[in-house]
Amino acid sequence: MNKDPLFSLSEYQARLARTKEAMYRQGLEVLLVSDPANINYLSGYDGWSFYVHQGLLVLMDLEEPVWFGRMQDSNGARLTSWLQDQSIRGYQDHFVQSNLRHPMDFVASLLAELGADRRRLGVETDNYYFSGQCLKSLTQNLPQATILDANLLVNWVRLVKSPAEIGYMRQAARIVERVMAKAAESIRAGAREGDAAGETVKAQLSGTDEFTGDYASIMPIMPSGIRTSTAHLSWVDRRYETGDLVLLELAGNKHRYHAPLSRTLIIGQAPAALEEVAKGVIGGLEAVLDFIRPGVTGEEVEGRWRRAISGTKVVKESRMGYAFGLNYPPDWGEHTVSLRPGDKNVLEPGMTIHVMPGVWLDDFGFECSEPIVVTETGCECLASFPRELIRK
Amino acid sequence: MNKDPLFSLSEYQARLARTKEAMYRQGLEVLLVSDPANINYLSGYDGWSFYVHQGLLVLMDLEEPVWFGRMQDSNGARLTSWLQDQSIRGYQDHFVQSNLRHPMDFVASLLAELGADRRRLGVETDNYYFSGQCLKSLTQNLPQATILDANLLVNWVRLVKSPAEIGYMRQAARIVERVMAKAAESIRAGAREGDAAGETVKAQLSGTDEFTGDYASIMPIMPSGIRTSTAHLSWVDRRYETGDLVLLELAGNKHRYHAPLSRTLIIGQAPAALEEVAKGVIGGLEAVLDFIRPGVTGEEVEGRWRRAISGTKVVKESRMGYAFGLNYPPDWGEHTVSLRPGDKNVLEPGMTIHVMPGVWLDDFGFECSEPIVVTETGCECLASFPRELIRK
Repeated sequence: MNKDPLFSLSEYQARLARTKEAMYRQGLEVLLVSDPANINYLSGYDGWSFYVHQGLLVLMDLEEPVWFGRMQDSNGARLTSWLQDQSIRGYQDHFVQSNLRHPMDFVASLLAELGADRRRLGVETDNYYFSGQCLKSLTQNLPQATILDANLLVNWVRLVKSPAEIGYMRQAARIVERVMAKAAESIRAGAREGDAAGETVKAQLSGTDEFTGDYASIMPIMPSGIRTSTAHLSWVDRRYETGDLVLLELAGNKHRYHAPLSRTLIIGQAPAALEEVAKGVIGGLEAVLDFIRPGVTGEEVEGRWRRAISGTKVVKESRMGYAFGLNYPPDWGEHTVSLRPGDKNVLEPGMTIHVMPGVWLDDFGFECSEPIVVTETGCECLASFPRELIRK
Repeated sequence: MNKDPLFSLSEYQARLARTKEAMYRQGLEVLLVSDPANINYLSGYDGWSFYVHQGLLVLMDLEEPVWFGRMQDSNGARLTSWLQDQSIRGYQDHFVQSNLRHPMDFVASLLAELGADRRRLGVETDNYYFSGQCLKSLTQNLPQATILDANLLVNWVRLVKSPAEIGYMRQAARIVERVMAKAAESIRAGAREGDAAGETVKAQLSGTDEFTGDYASIMPIMPSGIRTSTAHLSWVDRRYETGDLVLLELAGNKHRYHAPLSRTLIIGQAPAALEEVAKGVIGGLEAVLDFIRPGVTGEEVEGRWRRAISGTKVVKESRMGYAFGLNYPPDWGEHTVSLRPGDKNVLEPGMTIHVMPGVWLDDFGFECSEPIVVTETGCECLASFPRELIRK
């Protein structure tokens, strides 16, 4: 059992209790947790082992979740989770990436051993780490179980953050302020994009004088030139030139908790069209930050944005924000609240949202975002960085 | 269409032709490719957009694959793939992470539009990016299709690398030599683990004087002390101390092609038990490197390792190597050949294997690995780095 956990045992137990309440409401007796962020949230387990099948089994009538994973990772569960030794179950290596056996065969046996192979079993159907084969294998191996959709069940439990979680996100925000400054400093005409990316990631891990950082779940998104016309490209092997526009979608991370932040940088003179879009986006962002408070819905926030940009040159079809926090690659979003039409979720204090009005037009893009926490009376920006087009 | 592709159009077309041959042998008329590495391999598409559902549809009777993904990423497909505009199909943002709609609803409509909704459709059942919900949704939306398992179909097509691919892997190997040297230089008593990790990742992206690097699919695995007793932990927020053992499992990457390399470092005096294990592992690794040649199987290679370590203090249950190459997070392995009992795959020139005899004992671990390419007469180590315990 980990002697130095990141959260108190009572916090982990409260998370588990809330998960069991949600399971009860959804009529589940057993939950298979595959999402590495949900595994971490409930058990503390942290390792880059999610490229093989692993998970937690939460049984309504068991005090602790049961961790399962590859045998060679089970010492990692002993070192990083609060679980006792009997709750850590490693599977043999011949289950790994084999076409003869599947780790879900092991999970089915484990459920039988726990007397839980005929229960109502919830699975995270749309998670990256719960494949079609996981569903097929469990369905075949557990003919007497009832397999039900429990996608995002734990994600919704995670939506309102505790003071301790917000504490780590504030540390991540201190890091991202330095990361953005280092990226802005490193990008200049003549510099190689890969060198600027290297300095940026180094700043993510070096953190501050008081604490170091952890890896963000998304590598720096920092396209230049025409590559800014789309949402998710990175650096390439070229040197920056005068006139280049660069998008910077970056994050700080502490103990897997993120603080994402986006800005846009221009080397040299900004074209008038860019200035106009920048003004429109920043104005819209600030209107939204003034508007967010407990009681408003995701779609009302998006409506405020839409009113603010009406009449400007800003065109945006995609959602303009989403819940973020604890996560592993490939995403730092939590897949719960989105700021977009149709989102009826009501904001509450302690929710953390990346207000991210990125626009990607035919020939260029512009991003300026803020990671916020909803407070009792409004919202607070976690990071402090000038909200403007960065000019070099 | 991308004017500056990483491979010639004829190379992409040869890949597609071999994929269609494999589809024909498996009785498939349509293939849904969800694995980002397979998407890249066939189309050139490269972006950090795999956190939303995306893919390629390969139809036996269509000359080009059809890319689908989020609308805001479709300019990325235009900029990075060789596909023509009519083969790039973006879906609306309301499909993203919604509980009302699923991107596979869009894919089902697209298949109907292409006249392919009643065909024999292969899917990558156990891929990270083909969830249980993808399988459920396609099954419901395509009642007249026959949905078949095509897991790893394209991965097996990728197994033997072309000279151009090996060229990028040689560049990645040049990078990882520098990365390992920088990690070894940065780790010393008193230094913060996060600072050493920062220098290490910076070296991955800065690359060499001639070319910069790309992100590896796994962040540096560099646990210290008791954390070396397990396979996949990273740095933590502490300072190294004299006596610390550090595992270093690192990679260079160029254009998504990896060169992984592992070494182990000790600060101060090595305990006798570590010296013995190091000697055993390095001896076993060298015996295996001498043994590998075209015609031997994965299990024969593992057998050679097992004979070499018999009588030493080395204990290892897990596989001792795997095919690697092109990949995206969360893995750089290709999930095809494994060096382990039962693996009957016959090695051929152009296959690339990470010979990775990591051992994780109760209280410490040791890693020393080599990325190799199988040649006409044996194998060649892609990277050149002293094969010994690094002493600081």
